[in-house]
Amino acid sequence: MSVVYQRVALIGLGLIASSMFWAIKRGGLAEEVTGFARTPETRATAREIGLCDRVCDTVAGAVEGADLVVLCVPVGAMGSVAAEIAPHLKPGATVTDVGSVKRAVIDAVAPHLPDGVHFVPAHPLAGTEHSGPRSGFAELFDNRWCLLVPAEGTDIEAVANLRKLWEGMGANVDEMDPEHHDLVLAVTSHTPHLIAYTMVGVADDLGRVTDSEVIKYSAAGFRDFTRIAASDPTMWRDVFLSNKEATLEILGRFTEELFALQRAIRTGDGDHLHDYFSRTRAIRRGIIEAGQDVDAPNFGRGKAQV
Amino acid sequence: MSVVYQRVALIGLGLIASSMFWAIKRGGLAEEVTGFARTPETRATAREIGLCDRVCDTVAGAVEGADLVVLCVPVGAMGSVAAEIAPHLKPGATVTDVGSVKRAVIDAVAPHLPDGVHFVPAHPLAGTEHSGPRSGFAELFDNRWCLLVPAEGTDIEAVANLRKLWEGMGANVDEMDPEHHDLVLAVTSHTPHLIAYTMVGVADDLGRVTDSEVIKYSAAGFRDFTRIAASDPTMWRDVFLSNKEATLEILGRFTEELFALQRAIRTGDGDHLHDYFSRTRAIRRGIIEAGQDVDAPNFGRGKAQV
Ligand SMILES: NC(=O)c1ccc[n+]([C@@H]2O[C@H](COP(=O)([O-])OP(=O)(O)OC[C@H]3O[C@@H](n4cnc5c(N)ncnc54)[C@H](OP(=O)(O)O)[C@@H]3O)[C@@H](O)[C@H]2O)c1
Ligand SMILES: NC(=O)c1ccc[n+]([C@@H]2O[C@H](COP(=O)([O-])OP(=O)(O)OC[C@H]3O[C@@H](n4cnc5c(N)ncnc54)[C@H](OP(=O)(O)O)[C@@H]3O)[C@@H](O)[C@H]2O)c1
Repeated sequence: MSVVYQRVALIGLGLIASSMFWAIKRGGLAEEVTGFARTPETRATAREIGLCDRVCDTVAGAVEGADLVVLCVPVGAMGSVAAEIAPHLKPGATVTDVGSVKRAVIDAVAPHLPDGVHFVPAHPLAGTEHSGPRSGFAELFDNRWCLLVPAEGTDIEAVANLRKLWEGMGANVDEMDPEHHDLVLAVTSHTPHLIAYTMVGVADDLGRVTDSEVIKYSAAGFRDFTRIAASDPTMWRDVFLSNKEATLEILGRFTEELFALQRAIRTGDGDHLHDYFSRTRAIRRGIIEAGQDVDAPNFGRGKAQV
Repeated sequence: MSVVYQRVALIGLGLIASSMFWAIKRGGLAEEVTGFARTPETRATAREIGLCDRVCDTVAGAVEGADLVVLCVPVGAMGSVAAEIAPHLKPGATVTDVGSVKRAVIDAVAPHLPDGVHFVPAHPLAGTEHSGPRSGFAELFDNRWCLLVPAEGTDIEAVANLRKLWEGMGANVDEMDPEHHDLVLAVTSHTPHLIAYTMVGVADDLGRVTDSEVIKYSAAGFRDFTRIAASDPTMWRDVFLSNKEATLEILGRFTEELFALQRAIRTGDGDHLHDYFSRTRAIRRGIIEAGQDVDAPNFGRGKAQV
């Protein structure tokens, strides 16, 4: 791999930023990576574990002279961070972000950026339920998708370089418009997270009644939900507040289907249930064939089960 | 490990029965294990892979002389299978099952069993999304719970022996009454499965519109749901039809909570969302501390990701 950017600045040093740092180092994709996080604790942790070539105590210090600035903060904080960095951006630099929602981030960030700075919003479809500077690892983006969402007329070279960076970090890159991105993600990520949070919340209410039985006997289905529902509350609050329309639309469809299945249970309509449960199997096969998940039972933890 | 039963008969040769066979062999828990499945295909597969010491072409042949008969068929088929085996049961034998619902199975099976035969219903809380005779493995039950649901007054020795068998197969054993079992499982397994099926169904509808994008960009949350929703349609149809009341009750609570979160999104009530998302984290910690799941990000598939 060869250097794509002389200097990259990571603003926010959590799961995504730290994974980007290790992946950039693995690929030799930048000469220097600077970093900034708002709390002294996170900056101290970053220095302790060698996260970033240089951790700066001001956002200005991290951004100055950077060829690429990556906003790695919760979606709801993107606008204020963009306002802060704007005066310090090098002319000709590229600003990108990794936010899970795209329309709202573009609306919040773009107005602050000076002319002569390129804005190429992005979203890596990769994550885990862990967060913070210690949670990252170089392999997070390997063979996962990263979606670029540039506005029409964005500098071609700026887009091409960002693509090169993400490919260098192991990702497959596609382009998409922001509205479509937000709808697809509402289906594949946002609504599933809300539902998992809800189910775990219901179990928690009942858990208090039945002591720790819900935990003790957490069978397959529920265990998986608890992993999803262990994700960062701030990140997900911001996602739902900023992808409101698409999430509410998909939730509406979800509730409709759920009511139909509920009625089938109530009336004993086994055929409806069986048909419904049969067609969803094909999607799983598709995901495995597309190399987006492992086929091992229980994600492979079956055999390794403690 | 020492022999718990001279002869065990497995009726139905799918995921659970085949895992039991390999676990019984690993532990040396029975002198002979016979097996029966209704289709010639399954019996042929069983013979081919060495599943059971003796695969019988009639249910009578498998059951004759057995000290323990295990019903490993879908919940809705338990009653008719019990009726079929009843005339062939050895006096003093124990009949058990592995069904995911207990009240309905007890009501369907118990009336068919002759006096002098002990009935000890059971449910191992372990499974994968795969099914059929080839899907089993000896480690499936290791460190997972198996719940015994004997009626009051059941022969103490019969219960103790079944407990010994499950412990020998690696499981932790608890006793519970059937109604409580069905409610706890509605929370930890049945409702989560219904919800996962629903969400994947919604995505499937939209998937047709947006080509294969839902598969291609299946992000973390959704991928997990597709695994759950790849489970056997017949098994799950039977579970919902036979645990109707508890499932509908939990679904009612789920919908209530979901509507509250939906309203919080619509009205922009970030505090409600953040509070809700924070308390569900504790449950995940509990499950990991209880040794019922791995703490590795993405169930450990993160690093091994293809
Ligand atoms: N996690 C995933 O699965 C995933 C996947 C794809 C995209 N994303 C997106 O990536 C972004 C970062 O997520 P992450 O998982 O890396 O989060 P994370 O591990 O929780 O880290 C968040 C970082 O943002 C900083 N931050 C939080 N609130 C801030 C504020 N109001 N102003 C300035 N900085 C703030 C934090 O600083 P301190 O440490 O100093 O508090 C921390 O360094 C989010 O936009 C998220 O939507 C996440
Ligand atoms: N899978 C899980 O995660 C899990 C976990 C705990 C408990 N359970 C319970 O365990 C039981 C078996 O599940 P499994 O996963 O082992 O299922 P499976 O792999 O699909 O195997 C089911 C077996 O039952 C036989 N069968 C199906 N319908 C029948 C009928 N109407 N009459 C007679 N035999 C019939 C099948 O015979 P053929 O092959 O000849 O068709 C097959 O051998 C179910 O009651 C389920 O609720 C399952």
